[in-house]
Amino acid sequence: MYKITIFSVGKTKESWLLEATSEYEMRLQSLIEIKWVFVKKSEQLAPLLEQIPFIALTPEARQFTSEEFSSQLHNWLEKLGSRLSFLIGGAEGIAPELLTKAYATLSFSKMTFTHQMIRLLLIEQIYRAAEIQKGSNYHK
Amino acid sequence: MYKITIFSVGKTKESWLLEATSEYEMRLQSLIEIKWVFVKKSEQLAPLLEQIPFIALTPEARQFTSEEFSSQLHNWLEKLGSRLSFLIGGAEGIAPELLTKAYATLSFSKMTFTHQMIRLLLIEQIYRAAEIQKGSNYHK
Repeated sequence: MYKITIFSVGKTKESWLLEATSEYEMRLQSLIEIKWVFVKKSEQLAPLLEQIPFIALTPEARQFTSEEFSSQLHNWLEKLGSRLSFLIGGAEGIAPELLTKAYATLSFSKMTFTHQMIRLLLIEQIYRAAEIQKGSNYHK
Repeated sequence: MYKITIFSVGKTKESWLLEATSEYEMRLQSLIEIKWVFVKKSEQLAPLLEQIPFIALTPEARQFTSEEFSSQLHNWLEKLGSRLSFLIGGAEGIAPELLTKAYATLSFSKMTFTHQMIRLLLIEQIYRAAEIQKGSNYHK
């Protein structure tokens, strides 16, 4: 059983987002346990992430295809004892000092998306990565 | 008043997606009218798009930042008489012959997202583009 924690600034209030992310959490539950950690302010992140290897999501980082992300994700999980954390920054992005502490960085797009949508895109890519690994038809 | 039509394969059944896209349609309604055209099968797209200049969304195309997309979108709208269409392909992507007929192409990410999420990302980027043009605080 893998455990993935997603750190994010600001709580999920939108009902549509909760509905959509819950759907993927449910589909993943036999394989990967997803835990969300929401903080109110960006400043609360650094102490929480002190001892934790985390992958920072930032538009300037390298982009992966879904296939590349799948192998990368499984490599990280193997290397880090089946536990991994992701960090989604707030509206002002991720503080440069915190970014230097990231285990790796990753970009989904050159475009700016809302943090809400990044949460949904991330959990869907984790699910897609698991399905690619399984060789299922989800990612034809 | 601008008019943007989004052509897409497969209907939107997910209630969370309808809720999220409606929110952006409502926010845009004084400036841009959004019309959705859903077809059941990819083959139905070519005859519909015969006379229409459309922007095809495909992972292999050029990526824009949100700022670049904003100026590009407004350029297209000016050149094309305030009317523009977007095409989101189905699970098997956009047929190569149809792709050659596109007015322009655009990529959101190297990753593969679900068509449902592309719909949401596209309408949010159109809204963001309008807010960037206005100089509002939405896109800080």
